Amino acid sequence: MAYHTQYRPPHYNSAPPDQGFLWNIFQRVDKDRSGAISDTELQQALSNGTWTPFNPVTVRSIISMFDRENKGGVNFNEFAGVWKYITDWQNIFRTYDRDNSGFIDKNELRQALTGFGYRLSDQFYNTLIEKFDRQKRSQVAFDDFIQCCIVLQRLTDVFRRYDTDQDGWIQVSYEQYLSMVFNVV
Amino acid sequence: MAYHTQYRPPHYNSAPPDQGFLWNIFQRVDKDRSGAISDTELQQALSNGTWTPFNPVTVRSIISMFDRENKGGVNFNEFAGVWKYITDWQNIFRTYDRDNSGFIDKNELRQALTGFGYRLSDQFYNTLIEKFDRQKRSQVAFDDFIQCCIVLQRLTDVFRRYDTDQDGWIQVSYEQYLSMVFNVV
Repeated sequence: MAYHTQYRPPHYNSAPPDQGFLWNIFQRVDKDRSGAISDTELQQALSNGTWTPFNPVTVRSIISMFDRENKGGVNFNEFAGVWKYITDWQNIFRTYDRDNSGFIDKNELRQALTGFGYRLSDQFYNTLIEKFDRQKRSQVAFDDFIQCCIVLQRLTDVFRRYDTDQDGWIQVSYEQYLSMVFNVV
Repeated sequence: MAYHTQYRPPHYNSAPPDQGFLWNIFQRVDKDRSGAISDTELQQALSNGTWTPFNPVTVRSIISMFDRENKGGVNFNEFAGVWKYITDWQNIFRTYDRDNSGFIDKNELRQALTGFGYRLSDQFYNTLIEKFDRQKRSQVAFDDFIQCCIVLQRLTDVFRRYDTDQDGWIQVSYEQYLSMVFNVV
């Protein structure tokens, strides 16, 4: 099989943190005290102490994953999911980012995605690096790595729906193809 | 044939405006006097007098179309192209936006895209409206209409490359499919 699906970061399943600890963080991140953390608030919190602001597209992807009523932010209960999600990705990322630089190169990206079950050509890893190397360092930062995994996951899910015999090939009409893309982007 | 390609807005080919007139506009839009108009500057100019800021994704699409050296903005010569491009789209949009509301509904969008040569199902027009109705009015504003046309165009170009016998169907592998999408988004 040429591809694989995992919605959650694989291998890691960190224990939920203490509620009091999480509540303290929630209150610090929820700067306007609205009871919900917005894209901007989460982005500021995640960018804190870093040189480059956390990828806003990744922030939007994560918030929309946990924001159940589509209210444009996450409440405290939902934030627990966000926290765990990001922590799990951090743990995964660190196992591949051996020098703790905050970046992984093409080989490390290949190791990570191969570990998730993806089987992709060397050429395609160049495409991925080019696509998700937001800082133009021929490497992928943590936030962009999450985004890369989310996008690959969504694209793979949509492909699977059409690849009914699971042979890694699909035949689609023009309009089916357009719908597939609009399902993801 | 189920689809059609047009890079430029079809049917319209407005005369280039007077250079002095264009230079005056360029200077007003180039607020920081850098000699190049950035995304932010163009967006501000296009949002002037409107209720909702001009779609930043559309602005990026247009700038990147004319920014030949990938410098993140357009110089005066390139701006002439941008001006003509937007004016041509405005003329097209106005012929479909009969009540001059700044929005076109599903039927008007269908008329416009059918006029460009697209043959899409009624169901797919619902998808397009849902996708490009940024203001959630079940209608498409001018900036989102341009973006819709640009995206459809790019997707169609990529599809054509694979549809060698032009029958409106393609057979692609998982990785070809991923590459097709990354070519566009």
